[in-house]
Amino acid sequence: MKRSSDTSDVSQTAFDPIVLRPVGVIRNEIDEPFLKAGEAGIEMKERMAAIKAQVRKIRKMKSEIVITRELSGILDGLKAYSHLVILYWAHRVPEQSRSITRVHPMGRKDIPLTGIFSTCSPVRPNSVLTTVVQLVKISGNILEVVGIDAINGSPVIDIKPYARQWYPQEGVRIPEWMRRLLEEVGEDDSDI
Amino acid sequence: MKRSSDTSDVSQTAFDPIVLRPVGVIRNEIDEPFLKAGEAGIEMKERMAAIKAQVRKIRKMKSEIVITRELSGILDGLKAYSHLVILYWAHRVPEQSRSITRVHPMGRKDIPLTGIFSTCSPVRPNSVLTTVVQLVKISGNILEVVGIDAINGSPVIDIKPYARQWYPQEGVRIPEWMRRLLEEVGEDDSDI
Repeated sequence: MKRSSDTSDVSQTAFDPIVLRPVGVIRNEIDEPFLKAGEAGIEMKERMAAIKAQVRKIRKMKSEIVITRELSGILDGLKAYSHLVILYWAHRVPEQSRSITRVHPMGRKDIPLTGIFSTCSPVRPNSVLTTVVQLVKISGNILEVVGIDAINGSPVIDIKPYARQWYPQEGVRIPEWMRRLLEEVGEDDSDI
Repeated sequence: MKRSSDTSDVSQTAFDPIVLRPVGVIRNEIDEPFLKAGEAGIEMKERMAAIKAQVRKIRKMKSEIVITRELSGILDGLKAYSHLVILYWAHRVPEQSRSITRVHPMGRKDIPLTGIFSTCSPVRPNSVLTTVVQLVKISGNILEVVGIDAINGSPVIDIKPYARQWYPQEGVRIPEWMRRLLEEVGEDDSDI
């Protein structure tokens, strides 16, 4: 293995732009991003209560994923899975914010500035977001799913099967601030 | 919620190409994709044994993820996590294969042609692959991780925290052919 702390020796191809072509679009009733950075006007306690309510709503909310008809056949066999991983693009994140490297998680000023990779912020160099959803049914090129936290009109990048085997169950450690946040928004229970 | 089985009413933006800029590169000892489609010369039994050996090797194999220095700060706080989700680009998948919609999973002709979204094939419309890895250490802009199944030189798209809470534990159903494949390659145990 070649060891180097420098990326300048990497052949140009490794850092060439990558062009994705959306395979579909998400349709639901959420038209605005919920958690906007800099909503300083709202009290933290009030804000966290609103987020908790939103998390509960999203867990039960149905969305449709409309797959482009040119990819007919790509959904074959999918209904045998109960859960899917959806990769989508956070299309409302402004282009200029892609260079931001640190944020206060969930806009919480009581949590120190943290590197983006340690957070679930939609603001990232490449805003490819992932959610595990429950598959309700498939009708033609439309998937009905429950539990996606995307907003209406989000471009879909990929759909993958979900199996527990690919996700570590033991020895998983997360930082204390994240543990507290999950608790506060009601995501600390395992029944999701 | 707007219902439509047609994607023609979607504003053009939903299907505009998305441009990703790699944030880093993966370095390890794997220089060639292991599982090539159409390797018909090898007996299935022999092939599955080789895949099983490879899966075992990968589970323990160290890789380095070299993050571009321009994103200094983006790794702050990351070492508090034991596991991370790595999104990377399968850069060796030929451009023309992005229009393939169905494959025999793992090249197994005994499993019927299956829609790509039901499989873990690197051949997909957008070959953004995801793996949960164990984080060993961070030295400057280099992450040392264990368990990534990427090949040397793969561009890194994103790094996300891993917490069990975001992944369903109960009521998960997968198709019988996938259950058998996981068993055959030794991924049916939960100690990964």
